[in-house]
Amino acid sequence: MRTANRNTLWGAVLVDELANAGVDAVCLAPGSRCTPLTVAFADHPDVETFSHLDERSAAFFALGRAKRTGRPTPLVCTSGTAAANFHPAVVEAHQARVPMLVLTADRPRVLQHSGANQTIDQEKLYGDAVRHYRTLPEPEADARKLRALRTALARAVATAAGVEPGPVHLNVPFEKPLEPTPVPGDVPEGFADAHPEAVEGRDGPFVSVAAGAPEVDAATLEDLAGTLGAADRPLVVCGPEADLAPAALARLTGTLAAPVLADPLSGLRFGPHVDGNVLGGYDAYLDGVEPPDVVLRFGAAPTSKVVGTYLWDADARQVVVDPAGGWREATFTATDLVVADPTRLVDALADRLDPEDGPERGWRDRLVAREDAYWGLVEEDETFFEGAVLGDVTALAPDPATLFVSNSMPVRDLDRFGRPRSAALTALGNRGASGIDGITSSALGAGSATDDPLVLVTGDVAYYHDTNGLLAVARCGVDATIVVVNNDGGGIFHRLPIEDHDPPFTEFFRTPHGLDFEPTADLYGLEFVRTATREGFREAYRDSLRREGTQVVEVRLDGEASHRHREAFEQRVAAALGDGARKK
Amino acid sequence: MRTANRNTLWGAVLVDELANAGVDAVCLAPGSRCTPLTVAFADHPDVETFSHLDERSAAFFALGRAKRTGRPTPLVCTSGTAAANFHPAVVEAHQARVPMLVLTADRPRVLQHSGANQTIDQEKLYGDAVRHYRTLPEPEADARKLRALRTALARAVATAAGVEPGPVHLNVPFEKPLEPTPVPGDVPEGFADAHPEAVEGRDGPFVSVAAGAPEVDAATLEDLAGTLGAADRPLVVCGPEADLAPAALARLTGTLAAPVLADPLSGLRFGPHVDGNVLGGYDAYLDGVEPPDVVLRFGAAPTSKVVGTYLWDADARQVVVDPAGGWREATFTATDLVVADPTRLVDALADRLDPEDGPERGWRDRLVAREDAYWGLVEEDETFFEGAVLGDVTALAPDPATLFVSNSMPVRDLDRFGRPRSAALTALGNRGASGIDGITSSALGAGSATDDPLVLVTGDVAYYHDTNGLLAVARCGVDATIVVVNNDGGGIFHRLPIEDHDPPFTEFFRTPHGLDFEPTADLYGLEFVRTATREGFREAYRDSLRREGTQVVEVRLDGEASHRHREAFEQRVAAALGDGARKK
Repeated sequence: MRTANRNTLWGAVLVDELANAGVDAVCLAPGSRCTPLTVAFADHPDVETFSHLDERSAAFFALGRAKRTGRPTPLVCTSGTAAANFHPAVVEAHQARVPMLVLTADRPRVLQHSGANQTIDQEKLYGDAVRHYRTLPEPEADARKLRALRTALARAVATAAGVEPGPVHLNVPFEKPLEPTPVPGDVPEGFADAHPEAVEGRDGPFVSVAAGAPEVDAATLEDLAGTLGAADRPLVVCGPEADLAPAALARLTGTLAAPVLADPLSGLRFGPHVDGNVLGGYDAYLDGVEPPDVVLRFGAAPTSKVVGTYLWDADARQVVVDPAGGWREATFTATDLVVADPTRLVDALADRLDPEDGPERGWRDRLVAREDAYWGLVEEDETFFEGAVLGDVTALAPDPATLFVSNSMPVRDLDRFGRPRSAALTALGNRGASGIDGITSSALGAGSATDDPLVLVTGDVAYYHDTNGLLAVARCGVDATIVVVNNDGGGIFHRLPIEDHDPPFTEFFRTPHGLDFEPTADLYGLEFVRTATREGFREAYRDSLRREGTQVVEVRLDGEASHRHREAFEQRVAAALGDGARKK
Repeated sequence: MRTANRNTLWGAVLVDELANAGVDAVCLAPGSRCTPLTVAFADHPDVETFSHLDERSAAFFALGRAKRTGRPTPLVCTSGTAAANFHPAVVEAHQARVPMLVLTADRPRVLQHSGANQTIDQEKLYGDAVRHYRTLPEPEADARKLRALRTALARAVATAAGVEPGPVHLNVPFEKPLEPTPVPGDVPEGFADAHPEAVEGRDGPFVSVAAGAPEVDAATLEDLAGTLGAADRPLVVCGPEADLAPAALARLTGTLAAPVLADPLSGLRFGPHVDGNVLGGYDAYLDGVEPPDVVLRFGAAPTSKVVGTYLWDADARQVVVDPAGGWREATFTATDLVVADPTRLVDALADRLDPEDGPERGWRDRLVAREDAYWGLVEEDETFFEGAVLGDVTALAPDPATLFVSNSMPVRDLDRFGRPRSAALTALGNRGASGIDGITSSALGAGSATDDPLVLVTGDVAYYHDTNGLLAVARCGVDATIVVVNNDGGGIFHRLPIEDHDPPFTEFFRTPHGLDFEPTADLYGLEFVRTATREGFREAYRDSLRREGTQVVEVRLDGEASHRHREAFEQRVAAALGDGARKK
C-alpha cells in the first residue's frame, strides 16, 4: 500500500476497502482533485478501471454495469460541475433501484464558500435521490479516522446494494499535495505496523453486513393464499425489475393456473422458465378481456399503458408486492401493499396452495389462446416497420445475450413485438425515470459486465443524445451490435394528440434533425451498415452478431408510417381475435 | 391568446408575461409534459425559439446567451431526467452570476410519489444553486391564480437578472390534456373579458421592479478615498465578470496612476478604454515585482494563480468590492469587503480624489514598462505552441467580435498571451465553476445574441465533451469560427506534479483518446481545416473570419511540448525583464 503522504494513504485505504467489500470495477473521469483516488484505483490489482471523458456517460455506464451485476461500479470525478453531470444517472439509479456509489472529490473545507476555483457546493448535490450521503473527514494518518473511512465505505457498498438498492454519494475532500509525492512525517514511520486493522483492513469488508429481507407473518400468508386459492381469474403482473426468481414464479402460477403478464424488462419475459403461462403480447389484445378477480403485482409500473387501464377496470383485490415498501402503483387500484421479499413470498404462497384446488382454467386458457393467435399474426406480418425491428432483434438474438432497449419507442415496441422466449436474454432498459439520456452508455456498461453478446436498440434522438458514450467501445473494450432506428426525430409524438397541431408539431415535437449518423462510426472507429428493408436488416443484424467489433446498424424508417402500421395492425388483431376472452 | 383549455391558457399567459418582462428568446427541448409551454412559445411573435435535443447543451446555450445579453433566455424541458441534465449549467450560472430561468414541466401532484412513468422529484432539484425556486400552482382559469402566475414570472425574471444574477427554477405541473385540444367549460365563456388584467396582463411586466443597487455611506467613501489618495502603489485587480464600466475605471486609475490587472474575462482587458494602465501580461512578469500598498479588487478570483501569490505577499489594505456581498476571495488576504455597485463606487471615489494628489508614478511606470517589454518578447516569438494560438486569435480577431474560451488551458493561455487591445472584443468563458462541460454550447449561445463574429477556442477534451452542442450551428443558425487546440487529451496535467508519476499519468490523467475530429464536421455540416503550423493557422483563422458558415480549425499540437515551451519562455521573460519593478 502506498503511503507517500496522507492523501495517498487515504486513497489506498478507501480503494482497498471497496475491493474487500466486493467492488471489482470503477469508472474514472480525469481530473486533478480526485488524484489520490485515481492513483489508488489504478494501483489496485483487483479493480478493473474504465476511463471516461464525459462524466454523464461515465455515470450511465456505471449504471448499466450495475444493472447487470447487481453490484455498484463506483464513479469518481473531480470537484465542480463534473459531479453535476452525474445527476441524470443518479436519478435513474434512484428510481430504478440500481446500486451506485458516487465518489466526488472535493476541495477541502477551508476553500468552501471562498470563491476558490472549481469549488462548488457538493453537499447533498443529488438531494433526496440518494440512499445515503456524507462528506468524509479530511485525510489524516489517524487510526480512528481510517477505521471510520473503512466503515463508511463498507456501509456505502452495503447500502447501495441493499434491500432498496440505489445511489450513495460520498463527497471526498482533499488538500494538496494530491499526487503520491513523499511528505516526510505525514504518515509516521511504523504507522501501518502500529495500526494494521486501520491500514490493511480485514479479510473481507471491515464490517460484514447481513441484511435481512422482509417477510410477512403467517396470518398474512394464509390470508393471501386463501384469496388466491379461491380466485377464478388470478393474474400475476410483473413490471420492470420485478426481482423475482423465475422458478418460484413458475411454481406458483403452475399451481394457480395464473397467467403472467411479463413486462419485457421484468426479467421474466425471457429465460428457461418461459412456458405458456408467460404472456408478452397483452398490450395488443388485453383490451376487452374479462378482468381478473385477484391480481398479484411485482416490480415497477408496467411499460404497457393497456395493462394500467385493464387493471383500473378490474373489481379485484390487487396486491402490490414490494421488498422496499415502495408505493409504485400510479393507477391507484391497489388494495394491499405487501412489503416482502418477492421470491420468498411467492415460495411461501406456493407452499400453502394445493394444486388440486386450482381454479377453473378456462380464463387462463383463453388468454393463452389469444397470446398464441397474436404471435401468429405478428409472425405472418412481413411489413418492415419499427415494431418488426424489435421483433426480429428478439427472435434472432443469440442465447445467451444482453439486450438493452432505449426508452421512447424501442421499449414499447419490444413490449408489443418481442415474443417470450426460453433463451437467456437479459432485457434491460432505463425505466426508472424513462429518459432517453445515457442509453448507449448504459448499454455498454451492461455489456462490460459479461461475455454475453450485447445488442442495443435505440432511436435516433437517444443515439444523438449519447454519442459521447460510444467512446467506451474502444476505451472500455466493449463489443456491441447497435441498432439505431432512425426515423429522423421523435417518432413517439405521432402517438400523441399534438400530432394534429402542426405547427408547432414538426418543428418542436417531432424535431427532424436530418443527421446522417455514418460519421459517428468514423469518429469512434465502428463499422456502419445502413438498411431500409427487412431482409437487409436481418442480414446485417445476423452478420453483426457473428462478428467481432462493434457494428452500428442504422435502420431508416418513417416514424409516421410505422405508427400508422401499428394502428392498422392493432385493428387487424382486434378483428382476428375478437372479444374471445370474455366468453366462458 | 389561445384558450382551448386551462393548460393552453396557462402556457399562453406564462409566455406572454415573460415577453412583457423583456424575454426575447427561449431554449426548448422536445417532450410531452411541457407541451403547453412549447405551444405557447412557438406561438409568441416576439420570442425567438431555439430548439435543442440535448438538455445539457440547451442549458449551456442559454447560459452563453445570457452572458452576452444580461437577460435570461428561459429553458424549457419535460419532466424526468431531462431536468437533471440542466444541472451543470445551473451550477455554472449560479457561480458565475448569469441570469437563467429554468422552467421544468412536471407531472401533476396527484402522480407524485406514485411510481408514475417519467415522474421524478423535481422539487428543489438544484438545491442551493438557485436564487429562487417554486412549484407553480396547477393550471386553472382563475383570475387570482393567473395574477399569481404573472407575478411569479415577473419576479422570476427580475430575480434572475437582479443584483446577484443567477438561476431561478420554476417547476410547472400540468395535467392532461397537454395539447391545445378544446375542453368545453375549461375556460369559461367570457373569462378573458371578465379578467383582462389576469389574461392579457399589462403593458410591460405585471409588476415592474426597480431594483436598487447598494451604495456605501459618505464616511466609507472618505475613508477609501483617503487610503487610495495616500497610497504610493495603488493597484486595481479585475477578475472575471468584474461588472465595472470601463469609463469609470479609466477615470479612477488615471487619477491614481494605478495599474489595472485585467483578467481576460473581466470585461476590461479589451475595449476602447484600453490604455497603458490596463495590463494583461502580469501572469508572466509579476513574480518578484514590488507589492502594492493598497489593492482594489473587482469580480471573481482571477484566472492567474500568480496574482493570488502576489497579493498574498503584499502587506496592503486589500479591498474587495462586490455588489452582491459575495466573499469571493480565496487567498484570504482581503482586509475590507465593500458591498456596493462597482461602477457607482468607482465614480464616487474618483469624485473625491484630486488629480494633483496622484502618487509618485514610478511604480506604475515600471510595471507598464515590464508589460511593454513582455509583449515585445511575445511578439518576437514565432514558435507554434498553444499559447501562440491564443495570441494570434486575440490579435487577429475582428473588431467587434465575441471570443469564447474554454477552461483548462485556453483561458490560461489567453490570460498570458492575449494582449490587451482597444478593439471591442467581448471575451467570455465559464469561470464560475471552471468546468470543461458545455463550452461549445455556451459559445454558440453567446454568438446567437449579436451579429458580432464569434470565435471559440476550445481543447480536444472540451470539444469532445460537448460535440452535441454543435447541432445548434444548424438548428439555431449560429455561425462561428471554432478553433480546437487538439493535444490529444488533458494537456493541462503536464502542469501538475502527477506528470512525474507514470503510470498512472498517461492512462488516467492525460487520457489520450486518439480521436480524429473531422467526422464531427461531417456529422454537423461544418467545414473542417486542420493545421499544424503557425502560418497555416493564421491563414485558416483569417479565412474563416472572412467567410460565412462555421469552420472548425483543428490545430494539432503536442501538449507536453507546448508546456515545455511555456516554461522556457517564462525563463526567457525572467532573464530579459529581471527584477526591475522592485528598484525605485
